Amino acid sequence: MTKHFITKMAPIVKKFDYLVIGGGSGGLASARRAAEFGIKAAIIEEGRWGGTCVNVGCVPKKVMYNTALHAEFLHDHKGYGFDVDIKAFDWRRIKKSRDDYIKRLNGIYESNLEKSQVEKIEGHGILTSDKTVEVNGQKYEADHILIATGGRPIVPNIPGAEYGITSDGFFELEDLPKKVVVVGAGYIAVELAGIFGALGVDTSILIRFDQVLRTFDSMISKNVTDNLESGGVKVIKQSVVSEVTKEGDGTLTIQTNNEKISNVDCLLWAIGRLPNSDNLGLDSAGVNVDKHNNIEVDEFQNTSVKGIYALGDVCGKALLTPVAIAAGRRLAHRLFDGQTDLRLDYTNIPTVVFSHPPVGTIGLTEAEAESKYGREKLKIYTSNFVPMYYAVLEKKVRCNMKLICVLPDEKVVGLHIVGQGCDEMLQGFGVAIKMGATKAQFDECVAIHPTSSEELVTMR
Amino acid sequence: MTKHFITKMAPIVKKFDYLVIGGGSGGLASARRAAEFGIKAAIIEEGRWGGTCVNVGCVPKKVMYNTALHAEFLHDHKGYGFDVDIKAFDWRRIKKSRDDYIKRLNGIYESNLEKSQVEKIEGHGILTSDKTVEVNGQKYEADHILIATGGRPIVPNIPGAEYGITSDGFFELEDLPKKVVVVGAGYIAVELAGIFGALGVDTSILIRFDQVLRTFDSMISKNVTDNLESGGVKVIKQSVVSEVTKEGDGTLTIQTNNEKISNVDCLLWAIGRLPNSDNLGLDSAGVNVDKHNNIEVDEFQNTSVKGIYALGDVCGKALLTPVAIAAGRRLAHRLFDGQTDLRLDYTNIPTVVFSHPPVGTIGLTEAEAESKYGREKLKIYTSNFVPMYYAVLEKKVRCNMKLICVLPDEKVVGLHIVGQGCDEMLQGFGVAIKMGATKAQFDECVAIHPTSSEELVTMR
Repeated sequence: MTKHFITKMAPIVKKFDYLVIGGGSGGLASARRAAEFGIKAAIIEEGRWGGTCVNVGCVPKKVMYNTALHAEFLHDHKGYGFDVDIKAFDWRRIKKSRDDYIKRLNGIYESNLEKSQVEKIEGHGILTSDKTVEVNGQKYEADHILIATGGRPIVPNIPGAEYGITSDGFFELEDLPKKVVVVGAGYIAVELAGIFGALGVDTSILIRFDQVLRTFDSMISKNVTDNLESGGVKVIKQSVVSEVTKEGDGTLTIQTNNEKISNVDCLLWAIGRLPNSDNLGLDSAGVNVDKHNNIEVDEFQNTSVKGIYALGDVCGKALLTPVAIAAGRRLAHRLFDGQTDLRLDYTNIPTVVFSHPPVGTIGLTEAEAESKYGREKLKIYTSNFVPMYYAVLEKKVRCNMKLICVLPDEKVVGLHIVGQGCDEMLQGFGVAIKMGATKAQFDECVAIHPTSSEELVTMR
Repeated sequence: MTKHFITKMAPIVKKFDYLVIGGGSGGLASARRAAEFGIKAAIIEEGRWGGTCVNVGCVPKKVMYNTALHAEFLHDHKGYGFDVDIKAFDWRRIKKSRDDYIKRLNGIYESNLEKSQVEKIEGHGILTSDKTVEVNGQKYEADHILIATGGRPIVPNIPGAEYGITSDGFFELEDLPKKVVVVGAGYIAVELAGIFGALGVDTSILIRFDQVLRTFDSMISKNVTDNLESGGVKVIKQSVVSEVTKEGDGTLTIQTNNEKISNVDCLLWAIGRLPNSDNLGLDSAGVNVDKHNNIEVDEFQNTSVKGIYALGDVCGKALLTPVAIAAGRRLAHRLFDGQTDLRLDYTNIPTVVFSHPPVGTIGLTEAEAESKYGREKLKIYTSNFVPMYYAVLEKKVRCNMKLICVLPDEKVVGLHIVGQGCDEMLQGFGVAIKMGATKAQFDECVAIHPTSSEELVTMR
């Protein structure tokens, strides 16, 4: 009786050593690594385990990229001697396989948490002080709290914007649309437009300026824009959407500053992402955010409040799964494994865009290198060739590479590649560049023939 | 009259600074690089320009590997939602495209020679002294002579061996055979058996022991052997061919130590290669060969005779196009560009086998590392996973990786990978390993998700 009475009046606070808000890539990695050090960890998630990456990001995207690769290979069969009839494409089949796969992954994440003895807490977590988080009325307390709540796609504030979907909605599409307009010039816009285009959908990508991927090296921006166009995607430049209307037949009409685009059955906003920093009780705890609502952290992932940390997309910097994972693991080692100096170095992070063909990039763009070192200090190597794969095909999709080196020792400070196979090509060069490789050290390694990657060690 | 008379009696000797015997990858690269330094170079070739690599090696092999990839993709279309009817495969079409491509490359090699102002001499070169080479009765003299005559496939000395073809003959096949036996366990046997197998031919690979690629790391030997079998190639172990007979219907019967294999319409010997060191007049010049007839060279590619150099397959070491090219270029810099210490370092040469899936390897095998450092000094990391590509397919072709590290600092001395994408994955890791990378330096680089390559920087 007494116990019951107390529970009702003031719920017992559950205590942990480490409380993680957000069961995405970063939070899961940090909680599980922390648990290895014998501490008591819990993780709070209101949606599906795995966060953006597993559910509406990298993973299902890569499955659809691979689907698009198949569509591309279909066109190349003839050149390789195969006479093939393409009878149909069953979007529902691949969607179901993909969804089943994601469900299996969700389950694996859950069981990994159990194996790691990290306590799962399902619901929305809100900070009620610098040491407590409340979930469904239950309070949890820890000396160390990690915020890893990720982000979400932006929908613009214009009339009819709600008729569009975002990348989240892309993964819910039950049927392949006939006419798609993707709005945005970032990598998500490029990847999704590329998938639609390869699958034969009437696809436009609507961008504010003249090229996609404008924060990337200019060689990449140019080539990816060109490749979209030669791959059949209409690149609608210098355009901003002002209004969207839904017609009687259910199609959308998109009004831009230049034109009216009609009969659109899928409008996809890919204009950026927002941090999930609202509705977290940051104020109660005293955690600072910047003007974009990204949680402010130092290089050790410390927020403005001692004992509260943040990482991953909610901090708005390097929005990449492996960055969140690496930061999360290093944080766990720092807090609970005595490696008090450990932190993630945010320079030279390699990343791949799954465009058609894919992009790999690490380090400085040519423009960044020029402003950092001065033009006269740079030596730029480029290569532009048709990969052997296309030797027997009419279609030629070139491979472009750029190495940015700084004199006098030609240290490699940027590597940018666009072409078939670049996705698996980058990681090893990333290791070498992170080690401080010079051009001479690249060339010291004997080439591997015939590959595309060998070009990177034989540039002149 | 007088001039004509003299020409007949004693032909005028043509003089060069650098005389290269063999217009394959190594010879061409060395001659062209030498010509950049303003010296007078000539190159002698009796066959097609480009040597083994371009004509009967790497290049046409890769085209057929890509053809086999298409055959494999055909089987995966369904899982990715594509309903496709495979009506026919036209071997002659891809052979013609491939031959046309090779002819274009031959032409490019020739015109590159012309642009480089390297004199082409067509015919068989024979040394007549340590300074002279004779071709079709004409004598050529140079202070520096390079022998880069390459090698050729071995045909065994058994009854009926002549009914078989070699890799050279593979590229002449006008039609896809129905039943093939490939004899040999090296990478050429593996690659060609893999192509036949993927194209649906009844294919056997006949090996002396229990695994293919026995000189590779045991993880590779095992996985490539398993992958051949699961890919539909019969691996006939512990077998040696004793006799081949041609039947009245034109098919071959192959007698081994264990069985008789009948109705074979293509027998392919891939049991090794011999150096093209015979019929070169090595005796007249005094150039030494080893017991396998490989030309003996020191680490600067010097033969036993001052002013005569050799490199590439004719030396029997690291039979790889880029090794010959790299050695040839370095030699040109050493001889004619004043870089007197330059030589190719033959350690940590990365190489790829285009099996299904491909293999990448660099550095020591586990067995080699154990005998060099001792078991207690090694830390071995392995990874074994199903690449995401197979997530939606019934077929699962695993990826296997092994990192061999030496304590205490875990320097990476061997990296071995088998799996989809490993062909383009290796080069960058090669650069890092050549730089002396440690496991910690691998892990310093943030992973690229979702790729297979990221496994190499997150191994535990």
